[in-house]
Amino acid sequence: MKLKRNERVGALIKILSDHPNEIFTLSYFTNRFNAAKSTISEDIVVAKKMMEDLKLGKIETIAGAAGGVKYIPITSRENNRAVLEGICRKLEEPNRIVPGTFLYMADIIYNPTLVRKMGEIFASQFAGETLDYVVTVETKGIPIALMTANALNLPLIILRRDSKVTEGSTVSINYVSGSTGKIQTMSISKRAIKNGANVIIIDDFMKAGGTAKGMIDMMKEFEANVKGIGVMIATSEPEKKLVDHYIPLLILQNVDEKEGRIHVYPNESLI
Amino acid sequence: MKLKRNERVGALIKILSDHPNEIFTLSYFTNRFNAAKSTISEDIVVAKKMMEDLKLGKIETIAGAAGGVKYIPITSRENNRAVLEGICRKLEEPNRIVPGTFLYMADIIYNPTLVRKMGEIFASQFAGETLDYVVTVETKGIPIALMTANALNLPLIILRRDSKVTEGSTVSINYVSGSTGKIQTMSISKRAIKNGANVIIIDDFMKAGGTAKGMIDMMKEFEANVKGIGVMIATSEPEKKLVDHYIPLLILQNVDEKEGRIHVYPNESLI
Repeated sequence: MKLKRNERVGALIKILSDHPNEIFTLSYFTNRFNAAKSTISEDIVVAKKMMEDLKLGKIETIAGAAGGVKYIPITSRENNRAVLEGICRKLEEPNRIVPGTFLYMADIIYNPTLVRKMGEIFASQFAGETLDYVVTVETKGIPIALMTANALNLPLIILRRDSKVTEGSTVSINYVSGSTGKIQTMSISKRAIKNGANVIIIDDFMKAGGTAKGMIDMMKEFEANVKGIGVMIATSEPEKKLVDHYIPLLILQNVDEKEGRIHVYPNESLI
Repeated sequence: MKLKRNERVGALIKILSDHPNEIFTLSYFTNRFNAAKSTISEDIVVAKKMMEDLKLGKIETIAGAAGGVKYIPITSRENNRAVLEGICRKLEEPNRIVPGTFLYMADIIYNPTLVRKMGEIFASQFAGETLDYVVTVETKGIPIALMTANALNLPLIILRRDSKVTEGSTVSINYVSGSTGKIQTMSISKRAIKNGANVIIIDDFMKAGGTAKGMIDMMKEFEANVKGIGVMIATSEPEKKLVDHYIPLLILQNVDEKEGRIHVYPNESLI
């Protein structure tokens, strides 16, 4: 079957954007589309320009023997503003406050469309790093971390709150929750992480930073380098967290249970 | 900015396939691409034919006031065979067996690319149903369930193994694990599921079916209709499970710890 240019460009974009950060050789497309290398190269030029003009992400060509073409989800500031302000409007709904000034967030952090968009924003922030894994701890951070890992084409590591028999031999650490002061445990199979890996940590919520600090300590057990930390929401208080560098998507300033008011805003440096 | 046809077709496919099962109006594209309705209609015809010819999924136009165009990820049998046989080859690696004849699977079930592909296969199987939620129980099934929910454009519901204070008032049930005979608990916030909803259940593993049965019981608390159950792996023994209808992607026939041999194959009806 011979395809026309508009069909080839469409198919090329579909295949690349279904596989973020995965390199496809030109031969893959010459075979699949039954077309010459020069033709595919021209298709790529068209696709590349259109994606940049419409701010739909980036198509990058890699030269050399291991070369080819890949799609990188890079989000624009306008996109980030629209996504993050939309989530703030949702978070500000007064009926989210549950006793103890907690916020009910399951409908947001388990919404595939929203977590995919948040994952792409994180992926854009860490796009320059050479990474081996995205790390999170169960449960609420898993969807956002998975979508970040998907956008970066990296395996996801899920630290467990208890050690499960089906994981083989495990490494466990204790850590102190910064907000409650309670001692908690996290575990991971010894074989899950190769030594000396480069990782980023993604989680849904940071108050004092105790959980993030626990994840950093766990990474030390594997001599891993933590290249970045991303959290969906960080509270503005305490200002001094147990970890130094982290990227929040949103800042939660205040939950006023009596007035039913929630004050949350996007991280200014992303929008 | 005026776009050429090949640019419009590429952009249209990118936008639609980034938002599976979400309806976009023609006006959305006439505005975004600065083009006439008739032009966009022709673009859609081109995109539709190409997607079907290359088996990249389906583009559907919906007539009427609430009408528009959407992308449905429909996987072909050839695709399913390639994906599922690939996963079988990985699962058969002898070093996966951990004491107790369990299989180490974290590198597969937390791999975004693989779970995305499995999610699309599940979504294809349940594409005909009118659904409100995808339901799973923490932890290992979450990635596959999230990618299924993403492909179907549905919210994900995660049942918890314990009730967390941040969820507000919860519904809890006890259930008996079919394989271990132990009593387990699962909980969910009362507000997470609207009454009388249509749901599908997705999980990573089914042996006797006790967990799936527990999830069905939990759905009864919300008068929800379970329209289908999908599991990544079902064991061939016991043949009679505690639930009647379920779709496994793979059948695990045997784990021979002594010989280091794992026998697993794709569900024949999907390939």
